[in-house]
Amino acid sequence: MKLENDLYLRASSGQEIERYPVWLMRQAGRILPEYREVRASVSGFKELAETPDLASEVTVQPVDLLGVDAAIIFSDILVVPDAMGLTYQMIEKKGPWFEKTIKNESDLALIDNDIDVEDRLAYVLQAISLTKRKLNNRVPLIGFAGAPWTILCYMVEGSGSKTFSQTRKLLYTNSQLAHELLQRITDVTIAYLKAQQRHGADALQLFDSWAGILGHNQYQEFGMRYIKQIVEAVKGPFTVFSKGAYSSLSNLMDLPCTTIGLDWNMDMAFARSLCGESKTLQGNLDPCVLYGSEERIQSETFKMLKSFKSPRHIVNLGHGVYPDIHPENVKTFINTVKNYEI
Amino acid sequence: MKLENDLYLRASSGQEIERYPVWLMRQAGRILPEYREVRASVSGFKELAETPDLASEVTVQPVDLLGVDAAIIFSDILVVPDAMGLTYQMIEKKGPWFEKTIKNESDLALIDNDIDVEDRLAYVLQAISLTKRKLNNRVPLIGFAGAPWTILCYMVEGSGSKTFSQTRKLLYTNSQLAHELLQRITDVTIAYLKAQQRHGADALQLFDSWAGILGHNQYQEFGMRYIKQIVEAVKGPFTVFSKGAYSSLSNLMDLPCTTIGLDWNMDMAFARSLCGESKTLQGNLDPCVLYGSEERIQSETFKMLKSFKSPRHIVNLGHGVYPDIHPENVKTFINTVKNYEI
Repeated sequence: MKLENDLYLRASSGQEIERYPVWLMRQAGRILPEYREVRASVSGFKELAETPDLASEVTVQPVDLLGVDAAIIFSDILVVPDAMGLTYQMIEKKGPWFEKTIKNESDLALIDNDIDVEDRLAYVLQAISLTKRKLNNRVPLIGFAGAPWTILCYMVEGSGSKTFSQTRKLLYTNSQLAHELLQRITDVTIAYLKAQQRHGADALQLFDSWAGILGHNQYQEFGMRYIKQIVEAVKGPFTVFSKGAYSSLSNLMDLPCTTIGLDWNMDMAFARSLCGESKTLQGNLDPCVLYGSEERIQSETFKMLKSFKSPRHIVNLGHGVYPDIHPENVKTFINTVKNYEI
Repeated sequence: MKLENDLYLRASSGQEIERYPVWLMRQAGRILPEYREVRASVSGFKELAETPDLASEVTVQPVDLLGVDAAIIFSDILVVPDAMGLTYQMIEKKGPWFEKTIKNESDLALIDNDIDVEDRLAYVLQAISLTKRKLNNRVPLIGFAGAPWTILCYMVEGSGSKTFSQTRKLLYTNSQLAHELLQRITDVTIAYLKAQQRHGADALQLFDSWAGILGHNQYQEFGMRYIKQIVEAVKGPFTVFSKGAYSSLSNLMDLPCTTIGLDWNMDMAFARSLCGESKTLQGNLDPCVLYGSEERIQSETFKMLKSFKSPRHIVNLGHGVYPDIHPENVKTFINTVKNYEI
């Protein structure tokens, strides 16, 4: 079925576009009062993410309310370790917390082998199918997963961390175990992303939130090696967003994916000089711009748009939208992009 | 008085050295059982930092116990906002917490004008004088302060944060207030660093822990502009450590300071290519290497040392030493550097 608005997909593959597509990371979430209403009707984040009818409802909200050019399924990158047997809780105002973590070989017993993602992650896949129905071909739906390195960080550390020093310790003390885990995460992630496509995801994105805590060589060995496997195994529009991976930017451009996401500290012109017309670049307005006045949001958005030297762009923030941003300010951003003539 | 070991100072100014000097950020701290014993004798971190006899005792410990080539005064970058009237508590396992924060112009009334650092920060200055006596000219003593941008982050946010989005919001919504605060912090910091020198500090270091959350242009405007004022006002061996400021590395090289600190993700050869022989580079072993075996610590340290193409180096980690590192591993690192022939 042809989408009414396929700007995002055309921009992904470098086809002609009449204007830049725009969406926001974390657009389905706390910025919207309509989301908070749904969220208040359940016990917590996990119940919402695990209830396909509600997850699909909040996924569609920003399409209806903000007018974005793509929807992204409401879920979390931690559903993968959860499906592998390391269950987590999402603790209000604190973030994720895993009761069990992996520190040595014997902890591998905590992880289930040969899991069936269609079974274990059925709730996400159903939410995708339902969302596709509710979207009714208006805009594409993006599926996603965490990159193996970031998932490893949570499986070892068990929660968020400023340094993820326990995970980085493992790279020096037991790199074999790290590779074993990364490979298992990679295999599940490939199966999971393919399943998302089967259930209707039109495009995919990999989030490597903690790429920036590794130096160049370690990120090649423990990060990009597994991202490459995933990107090679899964076809179609695919965005890799390695937050803070400044020193690996040129290596990211060699991945066989369509799109590279940039955080707000990355230089768009420099990134374009590295990839030429071989990649679509996604990003990268500083999310804090959306705290500004209407005029400031417009001028900063214009500044970014004017810096684009190619039509191969998908406009986004350089990080997820912050929960206390006013929806009107998000709309100002979106409308500024929509009214901009390429 | 001539120091017995002035390697650190000679390396700072590019004079001849027979081997590389080595010290560790956070060397006076929880890694040492002898520190934990002193720490247990007082109510908390602040009492220790505010008691000159004890602060000087723990400052000297790593010189005696680890054999480092420089001491750094035991203190905290937050003594500056504290002295300005925004008092903080150091909450166990959580970090700093400020009861009052700056959000708008009227909050400026919370800050005292024209403070006398010799009075308000007498406890640090006394600790410096006492430390100099206890060191008895064995090694140089480093004084320090936080860079204005990082101090602003705490004054606005009131605690640590992953994004410091409230401080970054201020840059878009009220940049005038941000500049007003940054200038006040800068003025106090200059007076404070000069006072540290008068009381005996042989060298100084500025820590910009949150440099990495700003893009290039904002870091120039809200970060480096004030660092430059400080470096221009204070003479002598001076290190600027802007953690994560990858996109401003070439700008940092233009500062009139002797030394640039590099974090563990920064590329030493690239940094050297930017500064030639005009700067001493400090760093930058990944602190997680010290979790490794003796052989691994040695081989990673050798790898770093062999990458040096100039004698203008001071060896350090690329971040503060993590508190659960064994002192024997720190000694392996230090001795590997000391036994390495340039």
